[in-house]
Amino acid sequence: MALKISKRGGVPPFIVMDVLRAANERAARGGDVLHLEVGQPGTAAPRAVIEAARAALEHDRIGYTDATGLPSLRARIARHYAETYGTEIDPERVVATTGSSGGFLLSFLSCFDPGDRVALAAPGYPAYRNILSALGIEPVLIETEAAHRFQPTPDLLERFGGRLDGLILASPSNPTGTMLDRDALAALVAHCQAKDIRLISDEIYHGIIYGARAVSALELSDDAVVINSFSKTGWRLGWMVLPPDLLRPVECLAQNLFISPPTLSQAAGTAAFDCRAELDEYVAAYGRNRALLLKELPRAGFDNLAPADGAFYIYADVTQRTNDSDAFCKRMLAETGVAATPGIDFDPARGNRFVRFSFAGSEADIAKAVERLKAWR
Amino acid sequence: MALKISKRGGVPPFIVMDVLRAANERAARGGDVLHLEVGQPGTAAPRAVIEAARAALEHDRIGYTDATGLPSLRARIARHYAETYGTEIDPERVVATTGSSGGFLLSFLSCFDPGDRVALAAPGYPAYRNILSALGIEPVLIETEAAHRFQPTPDLLERFGGRLDGLILASPSNPTGTMLDRDALAALVAHCQAKDIRLISDEIYHGIIYGARAVSALELSDDAVVINSFSKTGWRLGWMVLPPDLLRPVECLAQNLFISPPTLSQAAGTAAFDCRAELDEYVAAYGRNRALLLKELPRAGFDNLAPADGAFYIYADVTQRTNDSDAFCKRMLAETGVAATPGIDFDPARGNRFVRFSFAGSEADIAKAVERLKAWR
Repeated sequence: MALKISKRGGVPPFIVMDVLRAANERAARGGDVLHLEVGQPGTAAPRAVIEAARAALEHDRIGYTDATGLPSLRARIARHYAETYGTEIDPERVVATTGSSGGFLLSFLSCFDPGDRVALAAPGYPAYRNILSALGIEPVLIETEAAHRFQPTPDLLERFGGRLDGLILASPSNPTGTMLDRDALAALVAHCQAKDIRLISDEIYHGIIYGARAVSALELSDDAVVINSFSKTGWRLGWMVLPPDLLRPVECLAQNLFISPPTLSQAAGTAAFDCRAELDEYVAAYGRNRALLLKELPRAGFDNLAPADGAFYIYADVTQRTNDSDAFCKRMLAETGVAATPGIDFDPARGNRFVRFSFAGSEADIAKAVERLKAWR
Repeated sequence: MALKISKRGGVPPFIVMDVLRAANERAARGGDVLHLEVGQPGTAAPRAVIEAARAALEHDRIGYTDATGLPSLRARIARHYAETYGTEIDPERVVATTGSSGGFLLSFLSCFDPGDRVALAAPGYPAYRNILSALGIEPVLIETEAAHRFQPTPDLLERFGGRLDGLILASPSNPTGTMLDRDALAALVAHCQAKDIRLISDEIYHGIIYGARAVSALELSDDAVVINSFSKTGWRLGWMVLPPDLLRPVECLAQNLFISPPTLSQAAGTAAFDCRAELDEYVAAYGRNRALLLKELPRAGFDNLAPADGAFYIYADVTQRTNDSDAFCKRMLAETGVAATPGIDFDPARGNRFVRFSFAGSEADIAKAVERLKAWR
């Protein structure tokens, strides 16, 4: 008999990471690559963040912190909610995590047992359902439509969800960039309250929006678990805001599973909240990328695009060009050097007809990509 | 009905972290604390590691890496096995992780399904059994004895384990510091091979030894999962060496659960392997702490000590002084400022009669602690 491999070890790959690896291999062979596949900024962290990290390197021995993070960081995050949303949050409810990934793992483990059923939108961030599956929780995919901005509604949950223990919302969403407005979010919060459904609100893209401000679930409910993140990069730092009943379970799980989030990133992250001007410039650059893509992608044959309310993604319906988006993206990379992510990563049933373009990269790269795609058409 | 909290969210706290928090609170109130509770170095990283981190801060945008880590780091780790153990390892078998904690989570998820049974020594690192429980895997505690260095033997596994899917070994062990010699490890490897038991070898203390060199499970078997770590600190970087059949499952899990280990730590960690002289000085300092404690603790009434072959722990049998080590440690902190960890963290059944002293701290602190404990006796 061979040694066993777990069934849950058979989770699907996070396809965007496979695309990234293929793109990196192409680059290592001397090929040029325009990275529209990975949702990570092309810019470095703001100067003050780097300075804070450098100071910590110089003066701190980089020991473990409390499992829930540095008290100063947690207090600064709480202040952010007062400043940005007008919502008072006790710093004790804030838990620093190893990226938002750490927040997902800790919230899923603390809220749900094996066999529980958790609804989430398709298309959506694939790691949600893959982490849920690895933990024995049943992901219930709610197939959403462009007509309601690819977001769930109470009606869709009632019609297709059955009994539910949890709901994961993401606004702005990855891969669509679409947002829930205050009324739509309030309706979902009320539905969850009425049905005893644990609401987990992924708000990692709240700082990257192009129109109306993003509404936090914390403005509407103290029961929601809110997950956020600093950078979408290799710093690997995020946070959660928890209802009081989850604090101790999450702390115990964090002690055992993580010990503490990366200390250097915590020291640096505290400075990030005071870099608004620099961060606004980054968002303005994303906005220019977004405008360019929304104008030029249709001229390259991508003419059915989701409204990119926030984040740095455009989700394109490519039904007119392929029904195998994986092969389509591989061919696009090989023939143009433009890397993008097939929709199958985000929507197992319908993603074969969609492609996600990330515009987190440099303006020069996005402009070059647009030209190549127009020529490739 | 209230919103549910998962049953598995009820894992016990990692008590050493609670002790750390109590100690930090005492320090914040102006009290002095001598930290013999947490197993982390009192020293900063070697100069070249800090320089590498600083250079990365200056020149790199700190993006995500491959989920399995930077290729240059993985290659350097593979070379370490050739240099230190004379064992050739394909760099593809090396996976960088977010601390050794990340390695435990990924190995447990990829090797075991809910209901599987995994043996481990009591006393042992509490997070092993708490992570296993959170993932629905049954931890099978093998109560070990001082007579065989608090390590499992094939005979103990046969007598008390029943059907087993996995075995976790730690040599040197936390909390006892005791090691398996080559023959003892070989017997366990052979037993696992004969019984189709997946062997996970925690080798994070291999670099901190005071006599005979530590033997890696990789010298004896290609089937073992080996877990190691860079620093036992807030850098949060570790690695695994995997048998080929686990590579793809672990990669997929890592993509979904972690995205990638902290980038800055990866850049810095690569430099650590070339800091042997500086690291040897640290180990020499631990050795002086160890010698002082082994000599003086008996004079403070702690006269039944496990042999501290490696790591930076002394496990003291305090049966003569208490059968409530938790209360004993709290009183010791309150009355002397010396923080130590009650054995209940490591051995639920018998830890009430044991205390773990960590000697990773500064020589001045250890010397002060010894004097206070002698006066407190």
